[in-house]
Amino acid sequence: MKVKTPVIIVNFKTYLESTGQKAVSLAKTAARVAEETGASIVAAPQFADIAKVADAVEIPIFSQHLDPIKPGSNTGHILAESIKEAGAIGTLINHSERQMKLSEIDAVISVCREKNLIPCVCANNPSVSASVAALRPDIVSIEPPELIGTGIAVSKAQPQVVTNTVNMVRQINPAVTILCGAGISQSEDVATALKLGTQGVLVASGIVKAKDPYIILRAFADAMKR
Amino acid sequence: MKVKTPVIIVNFKTYLESTGQKAVSLAKTAARVAEETGASIVAAPQFADIAKVADAVEIPIFSQHLDPIKPGSNTGHILAESIKEAGAIGTLINHSERQMKLSEIDAVISVCREKNLIPCVCANNPSVSASVAALRPDIVSIEPPELIGTGIAVSKAQPQVVTNTVNMVRQINPAVTILCGAGISQSEDVATALKLGTQGVLVASGIVKAKDPYIILRAFADAMKR
Amino acid sequence: MKVKTPVIIVNFKTYLESTGQKAVSLAKTAARVAEETGASIVAAPQFADIAKVADAVEIPIFSQHLDPIKPGSNTGHILAESIKEAGAIGTLINHSERQMKLSEIDAVISVCREKNLIPCVCANNPSVSASVAALRPDIVSIEPPELIGTGIAVSKAQPQVVTNTVNMVRQINPAVTILCGAGISQSEDVATALKLGTQGVLVASGIVKAKDPYIILRAFADAMKR
Amino acid sequence: MKVKTPVIIVNFKTYLESTGQKAVSLAKTAARVAEETGASIVAAPQFADIAKVADAVEIPIFSQHLDPIKPGSNTGHILAESIKEAGAIGTLINHSERQMKLSEIDAVISVCREKNLIPCVCANNPSVSASVAALRPDIVSIEPPELIGTGIAVSKAQPQVVTNTVNMVRQINPAVTILCGAGISQSEDVATALKLGTQGVLVASGIVKAKDPYIILRAFADAMKR
Repeated sequence: MKVKTPVIIVNFKTYLESTGQKAVSLAKTAARVAEETGASIVAAPQFADIAKVADAVEIPIFSQHLDPIKPGSNTGHILAESIKEAGAIGTLINHSERQMKLSEIDAVISVCREKNLIPCVCANNPSVSASVAALRPDIVSIEPPELIGTGIAVSKAQPQVVTNTVNMVRQINPAVTILCGAGISQSEDVATALKLGTQGVLVASGIVKAKDPYIILRAFADAMKR
Repeated sequence: MKVKTPVIIVNFKTYLESTGQKAVSLAKTAARVAEETGASIVAAPQFADIAKVADAVEIPIFSQHLDPIKPGSNTGHILAESIKEAGAIGTLINHSERQMKLSEIDAVISVCREKNLIPCVCANNPSVSASVAALRPDIVSIEPPELIGTGIAVSKAQPQVVTNTVNMVRQINPAVTILCGAGISQSEDVATALKLGTQGVLVASGIVKAKDPYIILRAFADAMKR
Repeated sequence: MKVKTPVIIVNFKTYLESTGQKAVSLAKTAARVAEETGASIVAAPQFADIAKVADAVEIPIFSQHLDPIKPGSNTGHILAESIKEAGAIGTLINHSERQMKLSEIDAVISVCREKNLIPCVCANNPSVSASVAALRPDIVSIEPPELIGTGIAVSKAQPQVVTNTVNMVRQINPAVTILCGAGISQSEDVATALKLGTQGVLVASGIVKAKDPYIILRAFADAMKR
Repeated sequence: MKVKTPVIIVNFKTYLESTGQKAVSLAKTAARVAEETGASIVAAPQFADIAKVADAVEIPIFSQHLDPIKPGSNTGHILAESIKEAGAIGTLINHSERQMKLSEIDAVISVCREKNLIPCVCANNPSVSASVAALRPDIVSIEPPELIGTGIAVSKAQPQVVTNTVNMVRQINPAVTILCGAGISQSEDVATALKLGTQGVLVASGIVKAKDPYIILRAFADAMKR
């Protein structure tokens, strides 16, 4: 199981604009852009929306979190088998809004390997990205928390953070897919991210809260092709 | 919004026997028993299964957890609006396998009030049950963690724990529905729970891992009518 | 073991002004005010400072936190026997900066009872205060987190919060000592707190970061006698 | 600031045998062995015991945990300046009994660098050890949790775990000191640990709960010289 790169992962978070039926609509918009442009776009809706979103579109679906558990007595936790049967093929983990203990990140990556799910591990800075890369996930995504939701793109405002991440990660792991996120809101931000050595972007409010998500996502997808 | 009492809440946890399509099947079994007996039965599947379970059956659906958040930037968390649109009318919180800080329990109960969801707050002993009752949730459920999953019913093995809970809770809150759980596996356990002053039971493995969940749940429902 | 009321508990937090040798100096200032005025003043320094502070002064010393553990394999945790032998006679728990799961609060109160330590449980609002009171600690302290460190006193800015807390707590527990905190920075704030029905205050920056802690603490102590 | 290698770090945990005055006695035993043998031995007592232990002995003292905080409003947390002034020159972090989020481990290592403290980061398996090594702490210590406290030494029972750790860590970080721990209870366990490529051991119950800690620790120190 692989996600084609370069890739745009759209994190639906828990915005009302991407909850329930609106999650399905937003995923359909993403699927339309993917079809029109050939771009690789992943949708990451809330757990309760995975099934309906996966039923509605053909693009890959990620969960927003996964717990390092086996089937059993784990009330209120997220089981790999559950999100997989609902239609997810991968998952974000360790997002700055849902951070995990180091041993848990390692354990979730193992669970993903066993269950053939794609882990995308978020990291808040270059050294943490390198640390994550040593665990050999499929994807690492650098997101400086202070830029999340600001509209000030990491790739524009802190290019050295992205470059340092790419350099430090590559010394440890030549194969991992590297994304960057936080503040990505314009198509130039996406183009710059790729120029800096990443294989794509992780976006949320830039798309979800856009007046017209189609227009923005379409511009992002076009920027990836240049 | 109210749940009729006495009530049986079936916690699906993260057992394979209650994941995905099997969650739908188990919920249908519960709905069949509810229809045949008139008993009040609630199903609490995993987040990713809520929508399909709610589409398939008419009995009330609870979530297994809810986070004290508003719509926004909360990657990987459980939003009231999300589980509600998926079809849940209430939620377990503070289960011994998913415990919360006290201020979070209080905040989730407020969220439930605003969103017209029914909170069922779990507690591990009588004094914690009393403490929970002071927060005025709709339901409090006492579950001694050391009996969970053992098949040794709290109502049979520790009747004084149930009685103490009922007494201590009633001094503080005359209106809250009181359930007990842990080890409930036979119809006598249900009957005893009601005799001890509770308004129902919270069960998991006793039903989910039963060779024939229908037979056990039917016996539980019949025991509630006596 | 009892703390005389009305009482001022000075939470040293982790300010540089109250770390190490400066913790000892500040505790001596508190002891001087206690001796001069007869006021009941408790010092709550950092764990590593408890022993030296307790060696230097006669006023009661509290820890800032305690873990719900027994002696054993608990690397990095706070053991009752440890803080007690160092000289503490009680402890803050569940401060808004160090919140605990409900079952842990209950367990720590039990540990305190066994080890003859005085638990002062912090709560962020009236309903949480009532919930805490049901666990029968010696002291509950209401501190609205949004006022902590602001210099805007809860007793002046939100008198109804204090009054509601007193009313809700008293319905459940007539014996518990009730304190209030957050923003307490002037002697009137202390006087008002007592008029509203509390038995004292929990203060931190108002004393620790004062230009002259002696002057402020002396004024607080004098305000308690009126 | 450096710790001489090979080294034995004695984690006092929260055993009664290493609390309060007994912590001072045990540290004196360790200091005696260090003096007699020239071995490098570090004592890691509870927070409240650091000051008295540091006053009593000349060997290096570590804290058992450190929080990623700056001076300020952090009730109940562990401040670098506090443990340093009490006499610690380093700290264990991320022990399996006190695990941290990945970003917190990274932040604590930064705090240690700024404050000239030596971080010893614990890891539960080889891949987590490699991940830790990417963060460039002074010391990484592999401890399989399932062997902790068993008396079955990791170096004897799982030599391949130690060897894999050394290999994986060295690919990422040639400079970091590598320790192993869990079940170390005989002098051969120490000798084997060094042969497998580590620079020392992290021990707890093997020393603390020994009938005569001097005899065991002396044997450990002698084994390090061979």
